[in-house]
Amino acid sequence: MKIERIACIGAGLVGHSWATLFALKGYQVNLQSRKDSTLNTAMALIMSNMKFLRQKRIVKSDEVEGAVDRIKTTGSIEEAVNCVDYVQESVAERYDVKKAVFKKMDLYAPDHAILASSSSGLLISEIQKVTEKPQRCVLVHPWNPPILMPLVEIAGGAKTSKETIQNTYNLMLKLEKVPVIIRKEVPGYIANRIQAAVLRETIDLVDRGVATVEEIDRAVSAGPGLRWALMGPFLIHHLGG
Amino acid sequence: MKIERIACIGAGLVGHSWATLFALKGYQVNLQSRKDSTLNTAMALIMSNMKFLRQKRIVKSDEVEGAVDRIKTTGSIEEAVNCVDYVQESVAERYDVKKAVFKKMDLYAPDHAILASSSSGLLISEIQKVTEKPQRCVLVHPWNPPILMPLVEIAGGAKTSKETIQNTYNLMLKLEKVPVIIRKEVPGYIANRIQAAVLRETIDLVDRGVATVEEIDRAVSAGPGLRWALMGPFLIHHLGG
Repeated sequence: MKIERIACIGAGLVGHSWATLFALKGYQVNLQSRKDSTLNTAMALIMSNMKFLRQKRIVKSDEVEGAVDRIKTTGSIEEAVNCVDYVQESVAERYDVKKAVFKKMDLYAPDHAILASSSSGLLISEIQKVTEKPQRCVLVHPWNPPILMPLVEIAGGAKTSKETIQNTYNLMLKLEKVPVIIRKEVPGYIANRIQAAVLRETIDLVDRGVATVEEIDRAVSAGPGLRWALMGPFLIHHLGG
Repeated sequence: MKIERIACIGAGLVGHSWATLFALKGYQVNLQSRKDSTLNTAMALIMSNMKFLRQKRIVKSDEVEGAVDRIKTTGSIEEAVNCVDYVQESVAERYDVKKAVFKKMDLYAPDHAILASSSSGLLISEIQKVTEKPQRCVLVHPWNPPILMPLVEIAGGAKTSKETIQNTYNLMLKLEKVPVIIRKEVPGYIANRIQAAVLRETIDLVDRGVATVEEIDRAVSAGPGLRWALMGPFLIHHLGG
């Protein structure tokens, strides 16, 4: 499947960063928000993202060239998804909000288009229920900000087709992300469940008076955090004996 | 308190790395092991550590100069601790083994010397019971290898003096470590408890069929691990909203 045009629905913290990434990688992007003020803020942030990425030499000057011009803004979901191959939804993290948006995306997007949700914990099985073509709905959870963090968790729902998952996986590879396909849908997927486990333990440590919030943050970054950036917990455990 | 001479009791994985660090920072080191073969292996590893640290420009050439010559090996605990200011024990992670060694260290070390254990999970309150001067016994848990990892967890037991903890903390700052003092003794201290929480969650994810061992390792290193190397879990949670 050839993906050339992409719609970003929602232009907040996650949506504007996705739009930056897609545009930098050469895709035509329709960036949508209900509010003009959100779109204006988003475009300002996108330009500041591009400047930052070029200054830090994360992208080359010729990649930035023309990237902003590939982004078009609109207030209408219908107009945004009208003739795209892939839609990345990044609206508020609530089932009712996401379902209303998916219903519209499903109605107006071309039949072949993939409909992806950036949700960080909701189930795509539940969201896809409101669509006529649930097989094309998929969860694509980026680690924020998508312009910097490599991880993307991909999950299909009960009715998602294997083709949708595979095409989404291929798109993420093209974007130079590190995609991981969730094999069984669970709330929080992989990485946020692990984050929640860490928070449970660290809150308990503060509660017991073992260390303060600052001390725990310092310990993680100077110890296990440095390892986890290089190796996952299983490899570390294996090497530790 | 002025610390100039240090004894390392146990010359295995952790002990030889401590010896490397102390020697590089200018301290006289007595490195002890019961076995000649362990001492020979340790000295070979220490020289290879120095070469590695110089090649990677983690230390300067003049810091390495003479460092190996500051290390003396011995088979006897009595000889090792005889006239030192600080003892770092890194023998097997068992109460009976550590207690037997602490009893000897306490008997032969000068009265003013601090007796520190590298234990990664045992309680110093329990170990210090076998000594005549429990106030000078302290837990100093390095993240392995001590020559590279910044974190050192420091914990006093029921009978450890505040002075011992403060002097140990100051020594760790001189060694350019990131020391964190545990406020209340618990098994596993801070960082290993957090590691255990991560392992519990990740083993559960494999068990549920959500992802494989390799996929989870990949997700952690490309996502939360990258963040934890820069910021602790509380700061990340705060910024994430």
